[in-house]
Amino acid sequence: MAKSYKIAVVVGSLRKESINRKAAEALVRLAPDNLDLEFVEIGALPLYDEDVEAAGAPQSWTRFREQISSADAVLFVTPEYNRSVPGVLKNAIDVGSRPYGQSAWAKKPAAIMTVSPGAIGGFGANHHLRQSLVFLDMPVLQQPEAYIGRGFELFDETGELKSDDTRSFFKSFIDSFAGWIERIA
Amino acid sequence: MAKSYKIAVVVGSLRKESINRKAAEALVRLAPDNLDLEFVEIGALPLYDEDVEAAGAPQSWTRFREQISSADAVLFVTPEYNRSVPGVLKNAIDVGSRPYGQSAWAKKPAAIMTVSPGAIGGFGANHHLRQSLVFLDMPVLQQPEAYIGRGFELFDETGELKSDDTRSFFKSFIDSFAGWIERIA
Repeated sequence: MAKSYKIAVVVGSLRKESINRKAAEALVRLAPDNLDLEFVEIGALPLYDEDVEAAGAPQSWTRFREQISSADAVLFVTPEYNRSVPGVLKNAIDVGSRPYGQSAWAKKPAAIMTVSPGAIGGFGANHHLRQSLVFLDMPVLQQPEAYIGRGFELFDETGELKSDDTRSFFKSFIDSFAGWIERIA
Repeated sequence: MAKSYKIAVVVGSLRKESINRKAAEALVRLAPDNLDLEFVEIGALPLYDEDVEAAGAPQSWTRFREQISSADAVLFVTPEYNRSVPGVLKNAIDVGSRPYGQSAWAKKPAAIMTVSPGAIGGFGANHHLRQSLVFLDMPVLQQPEAYIGRGFELFDETGELKSDDTRSFFKSFIDSFAGWIERIA
């Protein structure tokens, strides 16, 4: 039997009907059995401020850092805001990276899917996030790249992927991530 | 007499003793008389969430959008967090860009200075921010580029720039921004 891995799923949009959350949920359904995927919420994290840290980190920061630290790998599924990573996701990255020398992200394998309503599928956000993950020393799945465009057309009213081709791509993406985690674990 | 311009100053760090705030304050002191620079605070803006917008924007979002809208230009002075724009600043960018079609940033001339403790002076954050400003249709001062390294060595205990060379560069930067604003106004 394949070794099991715990994966933290971080979604970059807070919207209830977020197409990125739906995409993440589709990936969870398609994932191989040895991946245990858990959503980690980022909407209640106060904006990072070193003075606040010095006065005693808020409980939400500490809890978030523990959730990331306890995972074996991290799956990011995010929209693009203004050709970059949403502030809400970048704030979570910043909170998890601190205090200095105690980053919760360090060395954890990662994968990134970006989903957007337009045609270019969040390419700008995807690669801005990759630049941060270089610094954070997170080995990122390179292929398949996942820039998912036309996001509003992907899901039926029950949240299922409409197209078999898309489902097959999502399956190959999450399977590749599982392989990547095993390879470098 | 030169026409006067109102400049919103947005600092990407919330820390009280932030070297980026000190750099912004130094730029304010060195600015030509026809620039009226005002700090616009971003630390109390809730994380952007379209559902919250739909339910009625928080007063802090509305006030921030009005502050940016009423300015003729925007000066960004920011650290780099994890090789990108701090989450706190990116969230302000996102809040100001919404609701869709009503961006407060549109067409306002901008300048970016990044200040970091290390040697590369926030180059990563500077250019990630530039990518967002392309989308936001903000004409950005190109030269001089301002990647300020060794930030902890720049200021004396009163917050003054220690070196005449640095002061002269800061002066040329803010004068160039004034010229840029006049040119495209």
